[in-house]
Amino acid sequence: MIRPMVALTALVAAAAAMPAAAQFQKPEDAVKYRQSAMFLLANHFGRVGAMVQGRVPYDAAAASANADIVSTISHLPFAGFVDGTASTEKGKAKASIWSDRAKFDAAAKKMQEETAKLAAAAKTNSLDNLKAAFGPVGQTCKGCHDDFRNQ
Amino acid sequence: MIRPMVALTALVAAAAAMPAAAQFQKPEDAVKYRQSAMFLLANHFGRVGAMVQGRVPYDAAAASANADIVSTISHLPFAGFVDGTASTEKGKAKASIWSDRAKFDAAAKKMQEETAKLAAAAKTNSLDNLKAAFGPVGQTCKGCHDDFRNQ
Repeated sequence: MIRPMVALTALVAAAAAMPAAAQFQKPEDAVKYRQSAMFLLANHFGRVGAMVQGRVPYDAAAASANADIVSTISHLPFAGFVDGTASTEKGKAKASIWSDRAKFDAAAKKMQEETAKLAAAAKTNSLDNLKAAFGPVGQTCKGCHDDFRNQ
Repeated sequence: MIRPMVALTALVAAAAAMPAAAQFQKPEDAVKYRQSAMFLLANHFGRVGAMVQGRVPYDAAAASANADIVSTISHLPFAGFVDGTASTEKGKAKASIWSDRAKFDAAAKKMQEETAKLAAAAKTNSLDNLKAAFGPVGQTCKGCHDDFRNQ
């Protein structure tokens, strides 16, 4: 199951790499799109987290399914960060995303790489492996939010 | 690429089949979850539609990537239809979802089957095949919205 996900992830990455502005009729659609993707990402990552943290029993199949969804959706939000959609509102996208785009893009790529590792770890059916791969994903979430999301 | 997607889709379906209420801390989260999934679904289906309808040039790789995302996400929204989240507001979920759940579930399953066919058709790299598979997906969207979404 690892190779197929890699293949799918490559496809999703290709789709996500299309010119972003061309994909949305208006800026609000782009904002809603990225927020929707982030919400699903957080939800499914949270389901993995509940197992990692022992709040729900470890279920290898469910962990793997959710980690796969996380890895797939990790490629989606970034097309939604189109020009002119910065905000100063708490929890919203900071202007630094656009003024320091290379750093933002690198943070996104790092998160995608770590979620791919999480999906691969989940497929080993080992809770220890899942736990080991979970923290680094969480760090990429937090690091990017600290830098690029209004506190 | 067809078998891997089937395998992934089976995993996603397994995740989606977990007890729905257990996945959300409060009903509003479930509503936001299903709306987020539906928004992404519509966006990526729309990108396929733009090619089918000739509004953007046909790009086989992009069509396939988007159809794969559609097929994967087609399994997500339904966990969000938890009890107590019906509405009479335009565009929101009707009470008939819960009073006629078997019909709703069948409509969801039909949509998932048709999106899987769309993803398979996209992989043939034939615009004609893509066009042939596109309409039936759209019909499952419309049919379910007509029956279960407030007009």
